[in-house]
Amino acid sequence: MGMRRTSVRIGLTSQEPPAAAGAPAIFSGELDIPTKGELDIQDITSELSSLIDDSGILNGIVTIFVPGATGALTTMEFEPGVVEDLRAAIQRMAPSEIEYEHHIKWKDGNGHSHVRAALIGPSVTFPLREGRIPFGTWQQVVFIELDVRPRKRKLLVQIIGTG
Amino acid sequence: MGMRRTSVRIGLTSQEPPAAAGAPAIFSGELDIPTKGELDIQDITSELSSLIDDSGILNGIVTIFVPGATGALTTMEFEPGVVEDLRAAIQRMAPSEIEYEHHIKWKDGNGHSHVRAALIGPSVTFPLREGRIPFGTWQQVVFIELDVRPRKRKLLVQIIGTG
Amino acid sequence: MGMRRTSVRIGLTSQEPPAAAGAPAIFSGELDIPTKGELDIQDITSELSSLIDDSGILNGIVTIFVPGATGALTTMEFEPGVVEDLRAAIQRMAPSEIEYEHHIKWKDGNGHSHVRAALIGPSVTFPLREGRIPFGTWQQVVFIELDVRPRKRKLLVQIIGTG
Repeated sequence: MGMRRTSVRIGLTSQEPPAAAGAPAIFSGELDIPTKGELDIQDITSELSSLIDDSGILNGIVTIFVPGATGALTTMEFEPGVVEDLRAAIQRMAPSEIEYEHHIKWKDGNGHSHVRAALIGPSVTFPLREGRIPFGTWQQVVFIELDVRPRKRKLLVQIIGTG
Repeated sequence: MGMRRTSVRIGLTSQEPPAAAGAPAIFSGELDIPTKGELDIQDITSELSSLIDDSGILNGIVTIFVPGATGALTTMEFEPGVVEDLRAAIQRMAPSEIEYEHHIKWKDGNGHSHVRAALIGPSVTFPLREGRIPFGTWQQVVFIELDVRPRKRKLLVQIIGTG
Repeated sequence: MGMRRTSVRIGLTSQEPPAAAGAPAIFSGELDIPTKGELDIQDITSELSSLIDDSGILNGIVTIFVPGATGALTTMEFEPGVVEDLRAAIQRMAPSEIEYEHHIKWKDGNGHSHVRAALIGPSVTFPLREGRIPFGTWQQVVFIELDVRPRKRKLLVQIIGTG
């Protein structure tokens, strides 16, 4: 059930990692994350940091994106209390028990998942400084599974900057 | 009523598109979108892809931004059921029929539009890989008109990367 | 109580600001913002523009990020009516008076702050064109203090592009 990461460096002048000091580079990475189903919230901070290390890029911008319309990304203090509170807030924002047109049409029972994902958003962008994202002490980046069943998610990480 | 697109390439070492293979470049494009008024949700995926083709940039980051405080951008499965469900959720999030200070002051009747736009957000950022944004199969990028009347919107697309 | 800004230029081929015309560059800046406590919403547009001027970068992408899990960034029309309306909407989205697990566990009384921050988001990304972010006429970028007490916030600004 662990996460897995894959890295592809797209050097601007060279395909070889790590980036030459000061040379501009673009890096593409992936995090493969199996989820346990609805409102599984996973801390991906550590795996994202490892991808950044793989890239050899020290300063720039990091974007992480979920391909798919029933997942979302944000940051939060990842402790069980806030996780529970965020789940309850998402349920209040788009309750699962009311009627959804998407339900009626497609019978996949996840109309609320779609609405939640559109409102929270599919990507988040961070500054990268001296090889790390300067998170707050109590701040982690999380993937929120909003679909009603377990999924195998592939999150895409793009880093642009200089080595 | 169709969308229109405009492209301006800002080459780092040259003004001529397309980008030389491997050379870093920045590209600015625009999508002109007439909207039909409140909660008109438009799929702009195809026009955004055409702008990316125009840019000649293959790998990097794409940001799309709405100048204005009564529109928003996100991704969703663009099918009539989810469109209807998202409209209903936005209406629940900031109901149009309650009182707004902005209404009282400015008499333009769109206090709820402002609140909705601030909560959903004015921009979204994507990874660009091999000339395309790697959306999920059922995921489109949409502009959400939140103002109470039809508007002529100009969305700004910025692409930074390498050809 | 004023904001303060700090700039660090990370040239790709040189450490000296401003960027040589057409040369790629990355710039890191900071905005130090004292806040007055819960739902203090501050217009940071002018200070952000000054940082962009400091950078010497003309075209590219600007990301602004709050390190910390109880603040958020977005854009809005910054006038007292909308500010009041947005505060009310945030209070409806995650009411302060209901029970939060985070409250019960950590006794810091800000469970609703955490939930609100995760839903609004910690960063926003803009296109940069000819030395400015092309905001709409009535659009400003704001920091939203969501914690229950005054804080000294350090917002991180990352600019990537060409001079």
